[in-house]
Amino acid sequence: MKQFLTIDEWSIIEEGFQPEYNQISESVFSLGNGRMGQRANFEEAYSGETLQGNYVAGVYYPDKTRVGWWKNGYPEYFAKVLNATNWIGIDVKLAGETLDLHQCQVAGFRRELNMREGWLSRQFTATLPSGKQVRVEAKRFTSIVDDEVGAIRYSITPFNFSGTLTLTPYLDADVKNADSNYDEKFWNEVVQEAQDTEAYVVAETKKTFFHVCTGQKVILTQGGQEITPKATPLTRSKYVSTTLEIPAQEGQETVLYKYAANLSSENHPKQDLLANTKAVVAAAAAKGFEQLLQEQAAAWAAKWEESDIVIEGDATAQQGIRFNIFQLNQTYTGEDERLNIGPKGFTGEKYGGTTYWDTEAYCLPFYLATADPQIARNLLVYRYKHLPKAIENAEKLGFTGGAALYPMVTMNGEECHNEWEITFEEIHRNGAIAHAIHDYIRYTGDDRYLAEYGLEVLVGISRFWAQRVNWSGARKQYVMLGVTGPNEYENNVNNNWYTSTIATWTLDYTLKALQHVQEADAARYQELVQKMNLDVATETEKWQHVIDHMYYPEDPELGIFLQQDGFLDKEQTLVKDLPAEDRPLNQKWSWDRILRSVFIKQADVLQGIYLFEDRYDLDTIRRNYDFYEPRTVHESSLSPCVHSILAAKLGDEERAYEFYLRTARLDLDDYNNDTEDGCHITSMAGTWMSVVQGFGGMRVRDNQLHFNPFIPAGWSSYSFKIRFRGHLLNIKVTKEAVLIENQAPHALTLQVFGQSQTIGSNAKGEFSHQLV
Amino acid sequence: MKQFLTIDEWSIIEEGFQPEYNQISESVFSLGNGRMGQRANFEEAYSGETLQGNYVAGVYYPDKTRVGWWKNGYPEYFAKVLNATNWIGIDVKLAGETLDLHQCQVAGFRRELNMREGWLSRQFTATLPSGKQVRVEAKRFTSIVDDEVGAIRYSITPFNFSGTLTLTPYLDADVKNADSNYDEKFWNEVVQEAQDTEAYVVAETKKTFFHVCTGQKVILTQGGQEITPKATPLTRSKYVSTTLEIPAQEGQETVLYKYAANLSSENHPKQDLLANTKAVVAAAAAKGFEQLLQEQAAAWAAKWEESDIVIEGDATAQQGIRFNIFQLNQTYTGEDERLNIGPKGFTGEKYGGTTYWDTEAYCLPFYLATADPQIARNLLVYRYKHLPKAIENAEKLGFTGGAALYPMVTMNGEECHNEWEITFEEIHRNGAIAHAIHDYIRYTGDDRYLAEYGLEVLVGISRFWAQRVNWSGARKQYVMLGVTGPNEYENNVNNNWYTSTIATWTLDYTLKALQHVQEADAARYQELVQKMNLDVATETEKWQHVIDHMYYPEDPELGIFLQQDGFLDKEQTLVKDLPAEDRPLNQKWSWDRILRSVFIKQADVLQGIYLFEDRYDLDTIRRNYDFYEPRTVHESSLSPCVHSILAAKLGDEERAYEFYLRTARLDLDDYNNDTEDGCHITSMAGTWMSVVQGFGGMRVRDNQLHFNPFIPAGWSSYSFKIRFRGHLLNIKVTKEAVLIENQAPHALTLQVFGQSQTIGSNAKGEFSHQLV
Repeated sequence: MKQFLTIDEWSIIEEGFQPEYNQISESVFSLGNGRMGQRANFEEAYSGETLQGNYVAGVYYPDKTRVGWWKNGYPEYFAKVLNATNWIGIDVKLAGETLDLHQCQVAGFRRELNMREGWLSRQFTATLPSGKQVRVEAKRFTSIVDDEVGAIRYSITPFNFSGTLTLTPYLDADVKNADSNYDEKFWNEVVQEAQDTEAYVVAETKKTFFHVCTGQKVILTQGGQEITPKATPLTRSKYVSTTLEIPAQEGQETVLYKYAANLSSENHPKQDLLANTKAVVAAAAAKGFEQLLQEQAAAWAAKWEESDIVIEGDATAQQGIRFNIFQLNQTYTGEDERLNIGPKGFTGEKYGGTTYWDTEAYCLPFYLATADPQIARNLLVYRYKHLPKAIENAEKLGFTGGAALYPMVTMNGEECHNEWEITFEEIHRNGAIAHAIHDYIRYTGDDRYLAEYGLEVLVGISRFWAQRVNWSGARKQYVMLGVTGPNEYENNVNNNWYTSTIATWTLDYTLKALQHVQEADAARYQELVQKMNLDVATETEKWQHVIDHMYYPEDPELGIFLQQDGFLDKEQTLVKDLPAEDRPLNQKWSWDRILRSVFIKQADVLQGIYLFEDRYDLDTIRRNYDFYEPRTVHESSLSPCVHSILAAKLGDEERAYEFYLRTARLDLDDYNNDTEDGCHITSMAGTWMSVVQGFGGMRVRDNQLHFNPFIPAGWSSYSFKIRFRGHLLNIKVTKEAVLIENQAPHALTLQVFGQSQTIGSNAKGEFSHQLV
Repeated sequence: MKQFLTIDEWSIIEEGFQPEYNQISESVFSLGNGRMGQRANFEEAYSGETLQGNYVAGVYYPDKTRVGWWKNGYPEYFAKVLNATNWIGIDVKLAGETLDLHQCQVAGFRRELNMREGWLSRQFTATLPSGKQVRVEAKRFTSIVDDEVGAIRYSITPFNFSGTLTLTPYLDADVKNADSNYDEKFWNEVVQEAQDTEAYVVAETKKTFFHVCTGQKVILTQGGQEITPKATPLTRSKYVSTTLEIPAQEGQETVLYKYAANLSSENHPKQDLLANTKAVVAAAAAKGFEQLLQEQAAAWAAKWEESDIVIEGDATAQQGIRFNIFQLNQTYTGEDERLNIGPKGFTGEKYGGTTYWDTEAYCLPFYLATADPQIARNLLVYRYKHLPKAIENAEKLGFTGGAALYPMVTMNGEECHNEWEITFEEIHRNGAIAHAIHDYIRYTGDDRYLAEYGLEVLVGISRFWAQRVNWSGARKQYVMLGVTGPNEYENNVNNNWYTSTIATWTLDYTLKALQHVQEADAARYQELVQKMNLDVATETEKWQHVIDHMYYPEDPELGIFLQQDGFLDKEQTLVKDLPAEDRPLNQKWSWDRILRSVFIKQADVLQGIYLFEDRYDLDTIRRNYDFYEPRTVHESSLSPCVHSILAAKLGDEERAYEFYLRTARLDLDDYNNDTEDGCHITSMAGTWMSVVQGFGGMRVRDNQLHFNPFIPAGWSSYSFKIRFRGHLLNIKVTKEAVLIENQAPHALTLQVFGQSQTIGSNAKGEFSHQLV
């Protein structure tokens, strides 16, 4: 845990240059706009520790799989998030001497990620080895108004000398991924073109043949006046630059504006890429930096209007939650249904693939509540479009007849993970994808989604479950053998309660969905039955048989669901008895020891109870929570939010807040010692859930919102905004009361503390905690 | 399955050149002498498909581990059998044209591996692209008399031309492993030296710094007269050669004798290597090819005298069993306790490491019965010397206090395997190592071995078992969680019956061993207790508690032991119902499907019943056999022998023979389509066991030999030789009777068909099958 960042409610601030934390800062201060993004690398050269990263959404490379021992069924390729053209680069020379902070004495360093307005700035005074001093102020952003545009304002002022300032803004596509399996570069050259103030580079990914065109236009000013110094353009393979030689006087500020654009062949015909990029760059330059920045600030203000959470009385918590919301909005805008929420977003390249079950299980609720329903819908349609690949994936493992197994990790629908115990066995992900359909419809009421897309996905997944279970002659029940539950500290177990539960839930929901579509749209139903080759009678009978005869491990004596067969055979030690030096287990213990231990990486039975809470009475929930919580080490960032929500439900406000804290500042404080690889984007949605579903007690039942809030002891108030079926609500919880503002032209009836309340259009309701 | 080899009782013969099978032949026709060995590569250049392989026992390279996902506890390095200096090479040019069978028309090709005398020959007539015809006869061997020596006689006769014959005998250390993880070469140069008739190369392994010096001396004759043609020596990095230009007349035979030696720094001080190699080469050349060959034949005759199995009436079976015995004797001579029995011997580089549990579980009985007891003892001492590494290995996984986990695969005592489900979990190997001590003492009566070495190993392993089990509060018994049994088609199971059984057997045997040493040699006992830091009372009490309270899965209804918890939850399909196109499962099914299926790769419960057969009545054995056999796919070459022996015990002679056949000609007929990688050396010992323990029914109980033989229906007779406590016995089984010849100067009492019989010194006993 490192606390080197300044607490501020709206900004992330680093005061003073801390090169030892530079890679962490590069992650934390990352910029993104859903279409492209980048780590907070410096514009000028830096020879210290750095992880260079520029990313373009949807552009990936299927790196050849590297495994020690091949298992049948592994995918041949592992799709990697690609490090793409570096468009921020500006080499700086002062009278021939390179500016490189690693070689300088640095003073007055300040880095700020302004979340309210969506920009990154950096100021410093550097003393070069020769003694020359220079002041630099850099500001940049990736536009959320035009998501192909980025802009930089880079200001240099010599302090104690006059001389030639040599600035070389460049675009470099000759980059590599730090995690390349075989140390290869993934880009080929296509076009390089450079003139005095403009330059363009088109590069092509190997194997996938994506084209990305990156352009820059440079404008220089001195004393506010545009200047046109001597310019020397350069092109070489996958690289373009323009070297500008500027006479600079001591104390005189020179400002370089760099307008850049990143266009990919995912959005433009390849033959038009270069021309379109030129047009985008020209338009951005014509607007100018200040106007672009104003538009950016306005657009972010609108985003915050819909998704902000305000915490009064705890600036640390305020900064934490805003950082999470900011990064989520930077990562995924929902405008393009081909995209998804990468586990590192645009902040790093680790893990590969962009889509995990995190999307459905943790991120969907955030986007459902804070954005247009279309955004969440696009996340669902993404999976619908991958259905044929999911069917192929299941076929590879021996399943037939349209059974679909969605991949553990994917970029284009194909599996790109290769640990057998995860790839083949962590199949509960399939359930999360089915459940997301239910979650979406429950929240939005958009049940037409079933006929349009949802039913096909549900049937594919249900077919998988029906084949994945087998009849145990010994038990006279169906069993589910050889699975890995959400708790990845157990592998290849039998009858994981969570997996079996979500499997039969899927079957049941699919039966209901079939009936719903049949009743709502008989023609479409017939069409779908034919399309899916569904043998309605036989298949649904089998599903019902599985639902009716599924085995779920339980311990009647303890009154708990058992995570899996044999869980009580383990030595029942507790987390509190673990020596501090043994934590985190995944770094300190052998895999063997972890597997055999009782310790749980992330919510597993409790994840199921969270999803299906209405099935269980409070006593049941409490018994399971009391049993599993003391055995859970939360070594996944996705775990504490579920425990937080359940603790809140059980009235354990203190624990609920404690769990919330574990993720709220996970990256800001580098809790897990791994922020340098990138931020934990998907778990940020879990933090949001802790506040809204945990503290706020928000649920949707029977087409109504429910709130059951409490306020953490240290806070004066907190408030969050949500959208719900055409309403924009602002929910504020103070020590005394719950205030709900209905910013919509029609009234809304909802449940607060279990009582029905109606709030008029553009009106507020105030509800005392005493109601509890 | 490919049957391209000629049936012959004493030789393996390939008639006609079959380049499509060349890599299989290279494996099958391999030569070795326990110290060095090589695949049957051609002496002259060959541009067709070939796997070049020369190996020096004990010389290895720790290749950097390659895994997809690192797990704590994995070893950093994976020790590889090293492809070493090629000493057989002779480049041949005929009037400037290279002899390369891949470019020639080949006639009269014949390759023979003469097992009786231990040599490899090859004859052919080649028509080169130019039309030149040449007759070549090559013969070579690796000497078992002087195991650092190899010799080649290479004869060339031009058929239809006269001209210059250019012969370039060379030594090439610039070789690579085909399975190098990162495509690196593993050797560095040290010395190259070449003169007219002699050349030497010393190469050093990277990281391990072994030195290997290889030398050659060349003698040429024409018409039986030595000639000294123009010689041009050449040295370059890791390569030496001498090019000889010889005027050759049509029809005139030129013979090149190449005397080679391979000396390693494992056996010679590095500074003496070159000089010692020169001396060895000189001595070999002085003896001459014919004398060396005669000595070789005589030495092999002596080996056969001790280890042959003679089968009358079935030449195919005869060839098969002799091939197995021959390869075992080529691989391991037992003279060097630092060496062991590599799974591919000297026939290939696959798998890496040289020592698996195969040694103890399958190979030990062969060496016990066919060689001096010292040989088997050396196999045990090998493990004793690795005990500190086994303790380190266990510590890496979190075990303490001298607990020892022997590696799954090793070269120097360190683990070099990295699939977690095997490396960390296939721990039954530890039991096999303990059991081998018992097996050795049972056979030889050498119980002093316990005090000298055995006890320390047993205590280390028992300490491991005592920590590896845990008390299940639910069962009120000890359980063993997260293991992989011998059936590797199940991973990470709980309570594998075989593993739990051999674990408590070890504990029990260790308690007895402690008591034995205490009684036999109290001083040594005290010394050992101190050395091992053994808290006798506490530790042995714990062991006894585990023995008394261990849980073993069983099904009382079926009356069988259960392979593991939940085995009966699987869909109980049988091998006979598998479609042919699904076999072998490991090539046709996804790993997921294999894991969840009931199908067993190799004997598991039955392996335990085989080891501890005296604990179980025939009915119990039969019930388990009848249950597990139909579920076993025998996709490990180590499986059928155990089933064969149990079938024989149960009186199912037909099945016993059927199982025997599956391994007897495994490599000769390339059953598993993988002989090109090398031969399955360790399973060859299993074939021997099928005959001696299966058909012959040989056991040792209470210091006595027991025989209970039957004869397979198609055989006229079979006989095998064994050593037992100073006796050399020849056991011959005919249709009518069992003839046992005691070739020892003292009488022997043994049990035949359950009846005690005494056979006088140098006498024979004949026992009718009617006794049954």
